[in-house]
Amino acid sequence: MDIQAIRADFPILNQQVNGHPLVYLDNAATSQKPKAVIDTLVDYYNNYNSNVHRGVHTLGTVATNRYEEAREKIRHFIHAKSTKEIIYTRGTTDSLNMIAYSYGRARLGQGDEIVISPMEHHANLIPWQQVAQATGATLKYFPMQPDGTLDLDDVQKTITDRTKIVSCTHVSNVLGTVNPVKAIAKIAHDKGAIMVVDGAQSTPHQPIDVQDLDCDFFAFSSHKMIGPTGIGVLYGKEALLEAMEPMETGGEMIDEVGLFHATWADLPWKLEAGTPHIAGAIGLGAAIDYLSAIGMEAIHEQEKKLSDAAYKMLSEIKGVTVYGPAARAGLVSFNIDGIHPHDVSTALDMEGIAVRAGHHCAQPLMKQLACESTVRASFYFYNSMEEIEYLANGIKHAKEFFGHVF
Amino acid sequence: MDIQAIRADFPILNQQVNGHPLVYLDNAATSQKPKAVIDTLVDYYNNYNSNVHRGVHTLGTVATNRYEEAREKIRHFIHAKSTKEIIYTRGTTDSLNMIAYSYGRARLGQGDEIVISPMEHHANLIPWQQVAQATGATLKYFPMQPDGTLDLDDVQKTITDRTKIVSCTHVSNVLGTVNPVKAIAKIAHDKGAIMVVDGAQSTPHQPIDVQDLDCDFFAFSSHKMIGPTGIGVLYGKEALLEAMEPMETGGEMIDEVGLFHATWADLPWKLEAGTPHIAGAIGLGAAIDYLSAIGMEAIHEQEKKLSDAAYKMLSEIKGVTVYGPAARAGLVSFNIDGIHPHDVSTALDMEGIAVRAGHHCAQPLMKQLACESTVRASFYFYNSMEEIEYLANGIKHAKEFFGHVF
Repeated sequence: MDIQAIRADFPILNQQVNGHPLVYLDNAATSQKPKAVIDTLVDYYNNYNSNVHRGVHTLGTVATNRYEEAREKIRHFIHAKSTKEIIYTRGTTDSLNMIAYSYGRARLGQGDEIVISPMEHHANLIPWQQVAQATGATLKYFPMQPDGTLDLDDVQKTITDRTKIVSCTHVSNVLGTVNPVKAIAKIAHDKGAIMVVDGAQSTPHQPIDVQDLDCDFFAFSSHKMIGPTGIGVLYGKEALLEAMEPMETGGEMIDEVGLFHATWADLPWKLEAGTPHIAGAIGLGAAIDYLSAIGMEAIHEQEKKLSDAAYKMLSEIKGVTVYGPAARAGLVSFNIDGIHPHDVSTALDMEGIAVRAGHHCAQPLMKQLACESTVRASFYFYNSMEEIEYLANGIKHAKEFFGHVF
Repeated sequence: MDIQAIRADFPILNQQVNGHPLVYLDNAATSQKPKAVIDTLVDYYNNYNSNVHRGVHTLGTVATNRYEEAREKIRHFIHAKSTKEIIYTRGTTDSLNMIAYSYGRARLGQGDEIVISPMEHHANLIPWQQVAQATGATLKYFPMQPDGTLDLDDVQKTITDRTKIVSCTHVSNVLGTVNPVKAIAKIAHDKGAIMVVDGAQSTPHQPIDVQDLDCDFFAFSSHKMIGPTGIGVLYGKEALLEAMEPMETGGEMIDEVGLFHATWADLPWKLEAGTPHIAGAIGLGAAIDYLSAIGMEAIHEQEKKLSDAAYKMLSEIKGVTVYGPAARAGLVSFNIDGIHPHDVSTALDMEGIAVRAGHHCAQPLMKQLACESTVRASFYFYNSMEEIEYLANGIKHAKEFFGHVF
């Protein structure tokens, strides 16, 4: 992989921050966009911007075609059976809320169980708390091993005949743990439960095959996979989506509307109320074209090299605690003894290195790790090995600097 | 107003469609974007794209500042009291669903009434049907005059002591009717009901002062006001928003999250779950800058000239029925005797004129107008008087063409 050629496609990476070249290692929060994606947005607005599905004029037809072509690109990218299974949403959080609301609230009751993991992002946690509170269902957690992984024996024991929904992140946004969601889906199905996968941190970084995973729902966001902000996807098996009532109504999601009653359009439009984020959907299509041209296997390999190197280098720095398992996706969460994560992040920023400090929208996990927050460096295929060295050196400088101060 | 100078700011307008200069008269569906808005998106993605509110690195700080500055621009544009009252949503449909769900479902019950008008877009109709079905409340309609206006005496009689919510469009997307929402709000408040205004078709075209209207909620979309797709606004009075539970949860809308319970962040963030459409919000801010530089009064005047001319010219064509009152906002819905609206629209498109044919997401209104669909030409400040003439001529050509065929 020619990292320098790839980096040339991302205009934002070629800048100085605080007098240093930008080292962008906050990719788990959001990714940067290549020129091809930005150009696609500009092309849309400059040449064929129009509302979709509603008219017969030329611009409207072009916009509708491109919007639906993007849906087909997404279907192919995650290997769904049909474009009926690809629902445009605002992002992963919106997708997960739709599942919790439209599937969960309508079907669960007292005695039913929802099972999630302790490493969920709030987006795959609070909606289930809300379903449990609204329906009387019980929210349960898989136990987590000390290294931040799940044990399939524990999974087997936690899911019972009363379990109706299992929801789990594919990749932890804090620990980098890659969860065995295919195996968990099998266990869930054996007990008659459905399997929801939060794919926000996996879809940008590895090949995804929802049919192979055999999950019932799968959610992800465009902005974490070099696409525009404000758009994401809910994948669901057709029969489940077919049976779901929409969370939002209005606009073009209808078939017939009377004064007191309305019927819904076919999938996927039934679940897409209102004028959609047309530019965003088409931009996500361009992002998928770009990622596919490089190849998701190659991207995965490159990130593995980066994260293996980062894990090794950071683990060797005295006073640095790295959280999570050695085998991991492309991110490293850590703390330095005696220095607040926000101070570490600020010190790194002074050297142009963008990392994130905080609870990473995973407060319950923070409690389990016995800390309030961590520093997280997260990688993407456009990051170079030199940038990992900058990070390691930056951490050493921070240690020295705060060591002198305190 | 120098229309030619303004048109030069909108790259899309300078193109040929079917061998004719594009005459874009589908602005009620979506508006075109000036270079300043597109450049703002490109600047965001090329120079400071980052997630907001979550970190301390330089790009994140810049993105967060711009994102919140856009909120302040929106507050000023609609004259809200506080940025706490400006919630970013996906668009008008999303905003109205949030009100229906978070305010309506939580507060209404058997015996309560929701009152709307017969000219509502589905987005301000189906969500209320859903609330009525879920809570047992009664959905009622104002009567509509034959000219497509509301009579305040009727309004007074329809709203009762049992009415809890009145929701009405500010401007009809089909008829161009400008509803007296300030007077309706007064009547609603006198009876103890709240007033919701669908501002999708007014906010792009006239000055808005939510405090002067004294509405409790107000909803609008960016894409209809020269801003990006995928973003809109819910305005609500602070005390009402404060009392509302979020429809969606997760992400940065929280204060503290435990395994089984969570508490919410302050307004406005409490109601904004997940990574927002950052580029969209900042782009909407740029749209507001552009509109404000021209002035909403000037825009309103220009559109009045266009729609007065269109109304007059089209009314004079034999066999053309124009729907709605003479005093109207900038759009004209019509039909030609014996020619299907879709055929009219296709014929106009052959001359480069983009209009819309259909039910315009207002099926109950279509029934009241005794038609299945109409042709709608809708204007914006970048339209010229010549374009109105092209439209009138195009309609005459369509009449001739189909007159010969049939």
